[in-house]
Amino acid sequence: MTRTAVDAEGAWFEPDRMAELRRQLPIPYIDVVPVRTDPDGAIRQVGLLLRASGEGRIVRAIVSGRVLVHETLRDAIGRHVEKDLGPLAMPRIPVSPVPFTVAEYFPTPGVSLFTDPRQHAISLAYIVPIHGEAAPQEDALELTWFDAAELAGSAVLGELEHGQDVIVRRALAHAGLI
Amino acid sequence: MTRTAVDAEGAWFEPDRMAELRRQLPIPYIDVVPVRTDPDGAIRQVGLLLRASGEGRIVRAIVSGRVLVHETLRDAIGRHVEKDLGPLAMPRIPVSPVPFTVAEYFPTPGVSLFTDPRQHAISLAYIVPIHGEAAPQEDALELTWFDAAELAGSAVLGELEHGQDVIVRRALAHAGLI
Amino acid sequence: MTRTAVDAEGAWFEPDRMAELRRQLPIPYIDVVPVRTDPDGAIRQVGLLLRASGEGRIVRAIVSGRVLVHETLRDAIGRHVEKDLGPLAMPRIPVSPVPFTVAEYFPTPGVSLFTDPRQHAISLAYIVPIHGEAAPQEDALELTWFDAAELAGSAVLGELEHGQDVIVRRALAHAGLI
Amino acid sequence: MTRTAVDAEGAWFEPDRMAELRRQLPIPYIDVVPVRTDPDGAIRQVGLLLRASGEGRIVRAIVSGRVLVHETLRDAIGRHVEKDLGPLAMPRIPVSPVPFTVAEYFPTPGVSLFTDPRQHAISLAYIVPIHGEAAPQEDALELTWFDAAELAGSAVLGELEHGQDVIVRRALAHAGLI
Repeated sequence: MTRTAVDAEGAWFEPDRMAELRRQLPIPYIDVVPVRTDPDGAIRQVGLLLRASGEGRIVRAIVSGRVLVHETLRDAIGRHVEKDLGPLAMPRIPVSPVPFTVAEYFPTPGVSLFTDPRQHAISLAYIVPIHGEAAPQEDALELTWFDAAELAGSAVLGELEHGQDVIVRRALAHAGLI
Repeated sequence: MTRTAVDAEGAWFEPDRMAELRRQLPIPYIDVVPVRTDPDGAIRQVGLLLRASGEGRIVRAIVSGRVLVHETLRDAIGRHVEKDLGPLAMPRIPVSPVPFTVAEYFPTPGVSLFTDPRQHAISLAYIVPIHGEAAPQEDALELTWFDAAELAGSAVLGELEHGQDVIVRRALAHAGLI
Repeated sequence: MTRTAVDAEGAWFEPDRMAELRRQLPIPYIDVVPVRTDPDGAIRQVGLLLRASGEGRIVRAIVSGRVLVHETLRDAIGRHVEKDLGPLAMPRIPVSPVPFTVAEYFPTPGVSLFTDPRQHAISLAYIVPIHGEAAPQEDALELTWFDAAELAGSAVLGELEHGQDVIVRRALAHAGLI
Repeated sequence: MTRTAVDAEGAWFEPDRMAELRRQLPIPYIDVVPVRTDPDGAIRQVGLLLRASGEGRIVRAIVSGRVLVHETLRDAIGRHVEKDLGPLAMPRIPVSPVPFTVAEYFPTPGVSLFTDPRQHAISLAYIVPIHGEAAPQEDALELTWFDAAELAGSAVLGELEHGQDVIVRRALAHAGLI
């Protein structure tokens, strides 16, 4: 979750101003697990980004970012998918605003399974099938599609930060794969 | 729900045999609310079939039918959508098997909001976006797409039988439209 | 939603400061539909508060309020239920953080079904069975339990503001009552 | 799932008759994950039964059983909880009929994550907080409450049959514990 918010916020607040807001209010977020589906709708692959973390390490990440003031959740999902996966991704945003899980990120580790050193974020998580051509954007180094049935047991999930591996596992559980 | 089950069962059981089974066990069903969506995923239209009811009246209906033995829910959804909307409908079957509602149909009116004179059916209901060209099949006279925002307040829902209007309303509520 | 947030925020920010924050970020909220259940878990009654609105009218309301920074959703639900229904309400907060619906309140009417003149709020809505003795607190004039089966068709829902009637209807639909 | 159905069915069908029905229709089931909750609603413990399996081994099990013809899901949940946990369990059956997951049991291993040598069962799964005194009934040897936070990583889940460990894990994921 480290960099995406900064990008989106750059157009709106000075970094100091945003840092101040983050100490005063929980920040609404969306998390998106990008997937490719079979013709019968079953998840076949999960897409993970490879990017430099805020601390200079190379990490895997799902699509994640802040909801802006006066922005609908639907628009926020579309904007973050386009920002991370490009304008040709053709996401199938779910018909319902009900998330499959809610991730509460706290600065202090241990309050929940999710941490974010910068802020208290409340994130609504969605599974979004990608129908078009997704390509990593901006600072992302790579987008890799992993076999959904093998992902839960692989070491790849350990390369996700801040508890995003938990979100991917919950997505697979909700979709009936694990 | 009147005719579809008969069609599907024809290949499997004599009508007398099926009638007997229906007195002994609850019958697993799926109900599908076909929708057309905007590029941002919001429901724009709901598709309703026009068909002759078992009692000879002309009624509206959603896609509905029995799950066969050894058939997955995903296959049952695909089969019934193809049977009612044709092979070019290109349904986007949801990634999760969790239904947005469960409809319990009982022969005796008043036990629940759903009735089926023939049987006790337990139906898992799904919203299924239709991406291709849907056309009424077999005994259906017509498939009409209704504006989703106007549907809940219109008289059209009164033309659905057995409580299927309740399923459509719950679909609209789940999707955030009403 | 008018007054509850002000109460909760009084301890944390000056009104001017809160008004400023509200122009800059969406504000995370929770909405709670208090219910009484039958021994078999079915909703029997829905509890609605009677209170003075911010504009001086007498309105019905559900339990609603802001999530504070560093507060879990679970704690926020418990705090707002206690604030509105008293310390003896004995709420049964759901085991899952997944809301039955998400209400997006915008200052501009028509963007969604929910409006809040003061802010853009993103509210996670929960059905909370009340097991103890609930009593209206602070500025609420009355707490009334309405028959759940009759509520959807009654004029009472018209006395709710800001689209909270939609939240109650969605709760009844999710619970299988309408 | 092996024995519970046999018990319930004994009063209704001869074993041969039930075996025949099972070859002809999918059988509607409910699965219940019994839990104990903290005052704030979070799951603290998960209850697992210890019983002899149909094949003579000692296994762990959740509450599971068939829905009878003309029986509501709510009544089926209550009946199976009482049958397995006793009349003083005081279950809090969920307000909504929407299951947290759907388990499709097939006789052939590998079709899904769930197997049942006897039948194709379609099971709606619910998390049910137990408020009273639960005690193992009939053929169950023991009821043990396991710490919810530790359960997912323990060997205990390996003692469940037919994929019921998957149901417990999905319950913990849905409730936000893993």
